[in-house]
Amino acid sequence: MEKVLRIDMGADGGPAFREEPLGDYAGLGGRGLTSAIVCKEVDPLCHPLSSQNKLVIAPGLLGGTTAANSGRISVGAKSPLTGGIKEANAGGQAAQALGRLGYAAVVIEGKPQTDAIHKIFIGKDGVRISEEPQLKMLPNYDLVEVLRREHGDGISCISIGPAGEMKLCAASIACTDMELRPTRHAGRGGLGAVMGSKGVKVLVLDDSGTKPRAPRDPEGFKAANKAFVEGLRAHPVTGQALPAYGTNVLTNILNEAGGYPTCNFSRGRFESAHRISGETMAETETARGGMTAHGCHRGCVIRCSGVYHDKDGRFLSKQPEYETVWAHGGHCGICDLDAIAMLDFLDDNFGLDTIEMGVTIGVAMQAGLIPFGDAQGAVRLVEEVGRGTPLGRILGSGAAVTGKVFGVEKVPVVKGQALPAYDPRAVKGVGVTYATSPMGADHTAGYAVTANILKVGGDVNPLRSQGQVELSRDLQIATAAIDSTGMCLFIAFAVLDRPETFQALLDMIRTLHGIPLTAEDVVEMGKKILKMERDFNLRAGFSSAHDRLPRFFRDEPIEPHGVRFDVPEEELDQVFNW
Amino acid sequence: MEKVLRIDMGADGGPAFREEPLGDYAGLGGRGLTSAIVCKEVDPLCHPLSSQNKLVIAPGLLGGTTAANSGRISVGAKSPLTGGIKEANAGGQAAQALGRLGYAAVVIEGKPQTDAIHKIFIGKDGVRISEEPQLKMLPNYDLVEVLRREHGDGISCISIGPAGEMKLCAASIACTDMELRPTRHAGRGGLGAVMGSKGVKVLVLDDSGTKPRAPRDPEGFKAANKAFVEGLRAHPVTGQALPAYGTNVLTNILNEAGGYPTCNFSRGRFESAHRISGETMAETETARGGMTAHGCHRGCVIRCSGVYHDKDGRFLSKQPEYETVWAHGGHCGICDLDAIAMLDFLDDNFGLDTIEMGVTIGVAMQAGLIPFGDAQGAVRLVEEVGRGTPLGRILGSGAAVTGKVFGVEKVPVVKGQALPAYDPRAVKGVGVTYATSPMGADHTAGYAVTANILKVGGDVNPLRSQGQVELSRDLQIATAAIDSTGMCLFIAFAVLDRPETFQALLDMIRTLHGIPLTAEDVVEMGKKILKMERDFNLRAGFSSAHDRLPRFFRDEPIEPHGVRFDVPEEELDQVFNW
Repeated sequence: MEKVLRIDMGADGGPAFREEPLGDYAGLGGRGLTSAIVCKEVDPLCHPLSSQNKLVIAPGLLGGTTAANSGRISVGAKSPLTGGIKEANAGGQAAQALGRLGYAAVVIEGKPQTDAIHKIFIGKDGVRISEEPQLKMLPNYDLVEVLRREHGDGISCISIGPAGEMKLCAASIACTDMELRPTRHAGRGGLGAVMGSKGVKVLVLDDSGTKPRAPRDPEGFKAANKAFVEGLRAHPVTGQALPAYGTNVLTNILNEAGGYPTCNFSRGRFESAHRISGETMAETETARGGMTAHGCHRGCVIRCSGVYHDKDGRFLSKQPEYETVWAHGGHCGICDLDAIAMLDFLDDNFGLDTIEMGVTIGVAMQAGLIPFGDAQGAVRLVEEVGRGTPLGRILGSGAAVTGKVFGVEKVPVVKGQALPAYDPRAVKGVGVTYATSPMGADHTAGYAVTANILKVGGDVNPLRSQGQVELSRDLQIATAAIDSTGMCLFIAFAVLDRPETFQALLDMIRTLHGIPLTAEDVVEMGKKILKMERDFNLRAGFSSAHDRLPRFFRDEPIEPHGVRFDVPEEELDQVFNW
Repeated sequence: MEKVLRIDMGADGGPAFREEPLGDYAGLGGRGLTSAIVCKEVDPLCHPLSSQNKLVIAPGLLGGTTAANSGRISVGAKSPLTGGIKEANAGGQAAQALGRLGYAAVVIEGKPQTDAIHKIFIGKDGVRISEEPQLKMLPNYDLVEVLRREHGDGISCISIGPAGEMKLCAASIACTDMELRPTRHAGRGGLGAVMGSKGVKVLVLDDSGTKPRAPRDPEGFKAANKAFVEGLRAHPVTGQALPAYGTNVLTNILNEAGGYPTCNFSRGRFESAHRISGETMAETETARGGMTAHGCHRGCVIRCSGVYHDKDGRFLSKQPEYETVWAHGGHCGICDLDAIAMLDFLDDNFGLDTIEMGVTIGVAMQAGLIPFGDAQGAVRLVEEVGRGTPLGRILGSGAAVTGKVFGVEKVPVVKGQALPAYDPRAVKGVGVTYATSPMGADHTAGYAVTANILKVGGDVNPLRSQGQVELSRDLQIATAAIDSTGMCLFIAFAVLDRPETFQALLDMIRTLHGIPLTAEDVVEMGKKILKMERDFNLRAGFSSAHDRLPRFFRDEPIEPHGVRFDVPEEELDQVFNW
């Protein structure tokens, strides 16, 4: 897995590809690799939809191996949503397939002269790029069904829906899961629009006839993986809470903590939270014959995923994540779990980031388009996006554009990207991450909910400003490194709390690549990635003024705790001064 | 005229006002005053539609006097369009009325809790603020008619149309002309949205019973004004070309020079330019009983304005300006003068910036909504804005948002504001101004068309990069100063070419205020204003990356000269290093 596949969609005579060694990028994977390529090869002032932008798709350092939970795939580019560098990662099968096929990265460059739409097929015998007009504007589920009929069940797909083809800023890139459903999305930052601008509808990966990557030290690798799995199984979050209730276990926890942003961040508790909690969802799923514990890719031992059935016991969507349930639920005052699952399905099908879409609907509610709590109205609005009506295009452009078009003052975005499911006033550590992450508002970039709320990896009072900058800094560094391994971020719970699990992770990388790796090396890797990303953003025009939350988080206290976001701006400017 | 009227629209118990001395702001007027107040009193990171923003309306240093052409009024705020500081100025009667009423500035602060709409009446006997629900969503022409019936012909109005009430980023602020028509707009930067966010529909100024401001040295002032008027009349641009053909005299000139951006900046010459030129327009106006030489305010001796009648000899709009004819004409491939005049009327009536709207329609054409050249389609699109449909709201949000929503790569904006009627590749001096002005793309901020094309105030080859930075710098400094005097920018032709006319201007200010003023003082004033504005923008998050044209101006050469914008970026960064 040391090759880079470069595909030039703008080549004279039609799309062309070539393979290259990793070269200067050797030793990098996942986010480290996507950010390095974007930072070095993309003009920070280019238009995100121009031929100068590049879409980089990279498994992590452990991608394609038998390592547990190594199925994350990173996608990077200059973001149409934020205007800065972007890495979004997803689960599903694609990372393993690409890794087994020997690719450290696929780099999609250039842009066709026409608006033709293409399929890129990658198998062990080579690469085929074809124009596929019949795939145009197919939603993701329909698309995958067509491809399954053509190529069989053994493939994995990386695709865009109509939103990406329309080049909307909330467009995601979908990856298929073990059931070949397009449920795992590199959601944030509008990367689907970049893929659409390059005329690529789907990458079809066929890893049949390939084997997992062979470690330099197979026995050592196997032992490390075993210890790693034991660590994940032993930790209460990854061993019990996540498999039992999925990520939506957080609804009751955040609501109890008063950090659950309700009705467009107007209060910190949602009176109907229990109706959409993970506990209620698991009960509903079980009663209807869905699934509560399910992995999103082969080799997952956490299994936080699930399957949500409708009232008649038919598949409605994958089990929606906590952030989706929040964005389409509490943020919009909606407590109808079936409607939320339907919204999750529509987002996946059209190829939309569920967080951006949910927050956008809430902003539309703030503007008075529909009332808070109007579940069927929300469904209609997302359907408008899929149809590409003018209203749909506004909403599909995300919360910032929607706020601008409808003259809304209260728009929860940083660097143009919608805030996720944790109120930064009541979970201040994650507020620091929202404000300062090079990615725009992103909980995964430095998930301070750990020490703030879950009391994992430390204990920092979420309501006070003290210690939040240090917490966010350390987590942002660690996350940048984890995002490079291809590991699911949820391993962090065990890695943060159990030194032996962290060591097992280091041992896996060491025995795979034959290169010694210390905890300090990991920290250095994280710092290097953040530094590159910050450098790109600086050249793209970002300054400390962009490392700020919207003013209303400082001005308007949130109940029940009556707290504002009060981390001093001077301290925010110290996050990256390590 | 040393008082500031402060109106707090968010005061407990309803809008309240107070008068203050100029205090720290003494000696400032027009743009110098609006920018000083915004820079000092407005949080650069506030939301432009929030209670923290302030709308500042200020006549110039010579406002309210008998000085010829001193009728410009400056409006300033943090711009919803650019996110930076904004000053937009307009002609019409408002500046004189405010000046005679004794106000150096009106500062509208705060924001009501409700969405009630207000009228602010200012007369010699005081200020009255009233809720006026019946004025809600009235277009500007209808609004002014209602107010004329209520207050008589002696008033001047500063108002917003439906666009401002909808808080759209292309919303303008209209000022009435001598015929009490709302034809003179502080167009750029969406200041109408700021006024709308404060719940203010209109300021009605009644200067009956007031006198022109009395100079400290009445005889000296009279003599200086006489010399000044002679200078304006003697210069071929202000004495002949502008009164004969209006600003639209430029269509043929720019087209000839190959700097007339056609069909969304795809070429520099428009084959049908002659059909919409100033010469053709004047002929049409004369034949239909319109007017070709007309002042926009009392005391104008240039009279570049006019009245455009329809085929049946009825008033259709004021004579559209060159930039309007270009934006709705050549930029959109439209050569129907009647349609252009109708678009001008619609923009004025709904309260929209004609440049932003025209450029936006061209971007919509680029996106394929309607074909280039479709005049009736363009009319329909602007009518959508007035109706506030989702499509109308997209378009009314300006070119940048429209480009984003429709996934268009080629969007001619700087700092989010649409480029005006001079191609920066073929008129490179104005390209430097577009890139670097704190206002976003704005021809008036440093009108290098003078030395580049008209050969006034110097001769700098428009096609070469040499000398453009110096030219733009000098003009940006001079313009900031002129924008502070309340003088129409067109006096610059005579002032640049005739030292005695410049001296007469200095003498007017000196004899009015009793303070000596040298040419060096004027330069210092201009520099000080630019420095303030740049400082605000820096704090608002602008960096040198924002002082750039969109990449396509560097990448795509424009015919007929085959030139790109090639002023080096390092040189652009030297514009404000004087």
